[in-house]
Amino acid sequence: MRIALAQLNPTIGALEKNLEKVKKYYYLALENSADLVVFTELALIGYPPRDLLNYKSFIEQERALIISELMPLTDQPGTPILIGATHRQGDRLFNAALLLEKGEIKSIHLKTLLPFFDVFDETRYFSRFTDRKIEMIDSLPAAITVCEDIWNDLDYFPAPIYDLDPLEGLFDQGARLLINLSASPYHMGKHALREDMLPFLAKKYNTAIIYLNQLGANDELIFDGSSLVYNDRGELLYRASDVEEELIFVETDSLFRPAEIILPPDKDDIETLNRLLQLGIRDYMIKTGFKKAVLGLSGGIDSAVVAALAAEALGSENILGVMMPSPYSSDHSITDAVELAENLRINHRTIRIDQPLSTFTELLNDGKGPRQDIAEENLQARIRGNILMHISNREGYLTLATGNKSELAVGYCTLYGDMAGGLAVLADVRKMMVYELAEHINTVHGQKVIPQRIITKAPSAELRPNQKDEDSLPPYNILDSILELYLEKNLSAAQIIAKGHDEKTVQKVIHMVDSSEFKRRQAAPGLRISPNAFGSGRRMPVARGYE
Amino acid sequence: MRIALAQLNPTIGALEKNLEKVKKYYYLALENSADLVVFTELALIGYPPRDLLNYKSFIEQERALIISELMPLTDQPGTPILIGATHRQGDRLFNAALLLEKGEIKSIHLKTLLPFFDVFDETRYFSRFTDRKIEMIDSLPAAITVCEDIWNDLDYFPAPIYDLDPLEGLFDQGARLLINLSASPYHMGKHALREDMLPFLAKKYNTAIIYLNQLGANDELIFDGSSLVYNDRGELLYRASDVEEELIFVETDSLFRPAEIILPPDKDDIETLNRLLQLGIRDYMIKTGFKKAVLGLSGGIDSAVVAALAAEALGSENILGVMMPSPYSSDHSITDAVELAENLRINHRTIRIDQPLSTFTELLNDGKGPRQDIAEENLQARIRGNILMHISNREGYLTLATGNKSELAVGYCTLYGDMAGGLAVLADVRKMMVYELAEHINTVHGQKVIPQRIITKAPSAELRPNQKDEDSLPPYNILDSILELYLEKNLSAAQIIAKGHDEKTVQKVIHMVDSSEFKRRQAAPGLRISPNAFGSGRRMPVARGYE
Repeated sequence: MRIALAQLNPTIGALEKNLEKVKKYYYLALENSADLVVFTELALIGYPPRDLLNYKSFIEQERALIISELMPLTDQPGTPILIGATHRQGDRLFNAALLLEKGEIKSIHLKTLLPFFDVFDETRYFSRFTDRKIEMIDSLPAAITVCEDIWNDLDYFPAPIYDLDPLEGLFDQGARLLINLSASPYHMGKHALREDMLPFLAKKYNTAIIYLNQLGANDELIFDGSSLVYNDRGELLYRASDVEEELIFVETDSLFRPAEIILPPDKDDIETLNRLLQLGIRDYMIKTGFKKAVLGLSGGIDSAVVAALAAEALGSENILGVMMPSPYSSDHSITDAVELAENLRINHRTIRIDQPLSTFTELLNDGKGPRQDIAEENLQARIRGNILMHISNREGYLTLATGNKSELAVGYCTLYGDMAGGLAVLADVRKMMVYELAEHINTVHGQKVIPQRIITKAPSAELRPNQKDEDSLPPYNILDSILELYLEKNLSAAQIIAKGHDEKTVQKVIHMVDSSEFKRRQAAPGLRISPNAFGSGRRMPVARGYE
Repeated sequence: MRIALAQLNPTIGALEKNLEKVKKYYYLALENSADLVVFTELALIGYPPRDLLNYKSFIEQERALIISELMPLTDQPGTPILIGATHRQGDRLFNAALLLEKGEIKSIHLKTLLPFFDVFDETRYFSRFTDRKIEMIDSLPAAITVCEDIWNDLDYFPAPIYDLDPLEGLFDQGARLLINLSASPYHMGKHALREDMLPFLAKKYNTAIIYLNQLGANDELIFDGSSLVYNDRGELLYRASDVEEELIFVETDSLFRPAEIILPPDKDDIETLNRLLQLGIRDYMIKTGFKKAVLGLSGGIDSAVVAALAAEALGSENILGVMMPSPYSSDHSITDAVELAENLRINHRTIRIDQPLSTFTELLNDGKGPRQDIAEENLQARIRGNILMHISNREGYLTLATGNKSELAVGYCTLYGDMAGGLAVLADVRKMMVYELAEHINTVHGQKVIPQRIITKAPSAELRPNQKDEDSLPPYNILDSILELYLEKNLSAAQIIAKGHDEKTVQKVIHMVDSSEFKRRQAAPGLRISPNAFGSGRRMPVARGYE
């Protein structure tokens, strides 16, 4: 038997458009003699649909398209389809896998484990179903599962978060093939986790595994495909691309004999991050209807890395870098930015902000000169934000915000200023990792597209004379380490200090993080690459006591 | 027996400060001979704590304070305490009511129903517990419940959202008194719902009811107290304030005999809204550490209503209204705004934006004059946003955004411009209701504090010559009606048209709503007064297909 797996990139809510893609890949699979074509979780809707699921008419439309457009295909030309879709029973909505065969729904496999943590809200929309049955695929007893259903093995996970493991019941029924329709977003370390957990399951249950994952970025989340096929010995037979749509063919025979070639485990490294951030940019643009992006080029490392990523993602000709020097800008900030723009072959403009800045300061200082206080630092950032948004509004560019996670964490950024934009590319990338990315981008290009001085000079916001980030912040290597412990490991101040960090520094950093929640509440969506990003996965009160 | 109910206003996460308040009211209750003192859901933590619950050290600190500070009180002086708190069992966290007596935890009552819809995320943090026991309070068998536990009566609700009703089991055990510790936020219609559902329960189970609700606003949510006491005939004996902390005393004898005076049901009307929006402003300011608020005064109705609400909430002397006329401002926009400011006795300044506007337009139009396109309309709004944020940053004011829900819904507002601010007061108040509020405020004051012309003139953003809102939008009565059907009833375009609305108008409005999700994603927190506000209760993808 020949199973085709369609690793596709849907647009959330675009039922008709996603359907066209599903049909196109279905026919492509048939041309290649597939006996079954498999699609991902909520394939017509796209994942995560969030509150679109509250519109009953939307759910009804999804089912209507399955009935009118997909079910008939399985009668004529006649090859079955296994696809993720919602399923309603009375007042309850389920996240399901539907097996379509001979013009009908042959069987329905309802999801048991509904993720409710981090960015996930499935208990908000779906009911849980536990009475699961295996399904015969050709002559193979198969456990058909949806995403989270395979992620609660009580032997594998030291602290499983659900109280049951649906795989136990399915394998008790004698399943020999595990099919999982997923929409599982990337974060650093996820590749390694998948490629450790899945062979564990294969060996534990003596089962072959088909793991099919959604591709493509949606708002903050980057779905990295990387669909995987294991034989019943847990040997990796195939790994799909993490940035491209793919149609994968699996001969079921091959799943139950030793592998001819076993693929080595994936290295989830800085290049993975480089590729996936580009995918994040590209998809956000495509799915919000933009072709061109504008960003401020300060001569600093953050905007240099964003420019390089965007140029690669969208084509240099679609990127506009804007230099907006002020009286406080160093000479090298312009020359470095120009050199960068020329290396990347992106468009660039220079719009000095001296005039608007002095107009504002005169207006707001009763005709007197600049005071160089925080208000005027923010003002400069906001004037730049205004200019970028003006170019965006007038010329149809999407504005990319360039701030990194370290800044965003401690509030070292200006609301409506450098935080302005449609997408915050580095919002989940800590400063030390921005440096790594810069070095890596230069390595990939085989030349210093990001000028060396941008990488080596001391970081500065250049909002007052001779300003350096380290005047206000701990050195970034220390800051990043504290942020990791506080934001990603959820440790308390006392616990972080016990790990050897300086007490005053820890207190200061935590205070900065806690008291800048109001800025993050109004931040642009940021691409998520860590297990604990800001954005929809972090829900912190703004008005609260800090202790 | 004399039960004291403490309807308090906690600050989220401020464990020590909330504890001090709990202790203060405990002693006050004792001075008044209470035999039991009851506090609300998660009384030391404040509701909703959201992801603060992910910090294990935070949960441990809460329990440590209960053990070290509250339990000893119930030994000496010796009066028991019933208080909402978290409770950990192994890896699981529960939302609980703890009965503290004789220096110990006498009993623990774990919440069964965990709300997961709208603004609620309890399934994200808490486990569900179903094996509930009644508790003897003095000689009274009592059902001790936490908030949502009472909101799933299968006879009362046409479509209950949970599959079981914990009250059934508790009343099967013979409970005669229902005690509910709540943190239930206000929305329009909630008073009427509570005062209809609670007497229904009293009569159904022949039980007295003590309903104790949290007071005070936290971020978007306004908790309106309004704690209620019913006798076992379902007669309303007491209703607490919806804007003030209160210590309420209930003689249990009075719960089981006919009422001497039965209170009439509450009218949840425009004055309720007026009071609660003020509470929302005041608490957001207090809990974020601000005393003074600044806002732009355009001479329009939205900013007039916000100024009036803020003056009442914070004292006129703490409000600064800023007039920022442009070349497109009408004469009356200034005179009306000045008249308003003088009527309200708030501080006011005029800062014309002609200079920064012309500086920007020259800079951005290659030295040529204004083009009067959308980019320049947004620019004006952003210059005003810059000025307000500059005053905020330099002088320590919190900026109040003044846009209403109708504008925010259709994106008739400028990101980083009029949307800028720490709190969006009218973000959930539709335009027609803003008019009602204006009329009401004048009635309350017994004079036209909001000048009549502000109420009667045609709404205009005044961003180009002779602009009127109705050039771009349907009349507000029609717009508001469509918005209610689309946003609050979740109806589809077809369903709204079937209700008699013009097809083109409906399509246009829905398109405007859908395509401005990106603006709302970056909006300031807005006070919630409807069951379907924007903000944390609405989770819509930005990058998606529109169909």
